[in-house]
Amino acid sequence: MSDPVGPVGPFEPPYYAVVFTSVLAEGGQGYGETGERMDELVAAVPGFLGAESARTPGGVGITVGYFRDEDAIRAWQSDPEHRAAQRRGREEWYESYAVHVAKVERSYGYVRG
Amino acid sequence: MSDPVGPVGPFEPPYYAVVFTSVLAEGGQGYGETGERMDELVAAVPGFLGAESARTPGGVGITVGYFRDEDAIRAWQSDPEHRAAQRRGREEWYESYAVHVAKVERSYGYVRG
Repeated sequence: MSDPVGPVGPFEPPYYAVVFTSVLAEGGQGYGETGERMDELVAAVPGFLGAESARTPGGVGITVGYFRDEDAIRAWQSDPEHRAAQRRGREEWYESYAVHVAKVERSYGYVRG
Repeated sequence: MSDPVGPVGPFEPPYYAVVFTSVLAEGGQGYGETGERMDELVAAVPGFLGAESARTPGGVGITVGYFRDEDAIRAWQSDPEHRAAQRRGREEWYESYAVHVAKVERSYGYVRG
C-alpha cells in the first residue's frame, strides 16, 4: 500500500491474514499499475480489513491482507480482475511466490507514547 | 533473513505464521546486530520452520516467522535474549508495531518452470 503511516491493525480476533511472499522476475511490465488497481479493488471487498506490503530492493516482497472471514477471502479470490492479474503474475511478473492463508488467534500492538 | 533466494514454504498445514509489522523510529542504534542475533537464536528453536523479512526504505517492515505449533512459538517468545530485545525494541527502535499470531489452514506456492 502506498504511504503507510503505521502497521495495519491489530484487529479483534478471529480474523484472517493472507500472507503473499514473492520474488520478482526480471523485466516485467505493468506490475505497478496492476498493483494499484488491485489495491482499489480489494478495498471494496466486504470484510476486507486492510493490507500492507514491503519489498526490499532486490529481495523478497511480502504483502499481508487482513480479512474478517473466509467469505471475504473467497470474494476476493474469485474476483475476475484479480484472477486475471494472478494469471499475468505467473506469466510475467513472478519468479516464485508462496501464499499462506491463516486464521489469526491473537494479536497485539504497540505505539510509542 | 539475509540473502533470500525465494519465498519460505509453503509447509504442510497446520502450522503457525507470526506476522510482525513495524515502523522504525529515527536514530536507533544496534538494530541490525540484534536482528542478526535473533535470526541465529530463532533458527535453534525446535519447531521453527523459517522466516522472511522485507522493509521498504522509509516505510513499513514486515517479518513473518513460521512455526510448527504453539509450543514452538512459546519457546521463542519466552527466550530471555529475545525478551530483552523486545524491550529494547520498544524503548529504542520502533515507532509502532503490530503482531498477528495465526494458524495456517492452507498454503500453496508457485515456482517458474
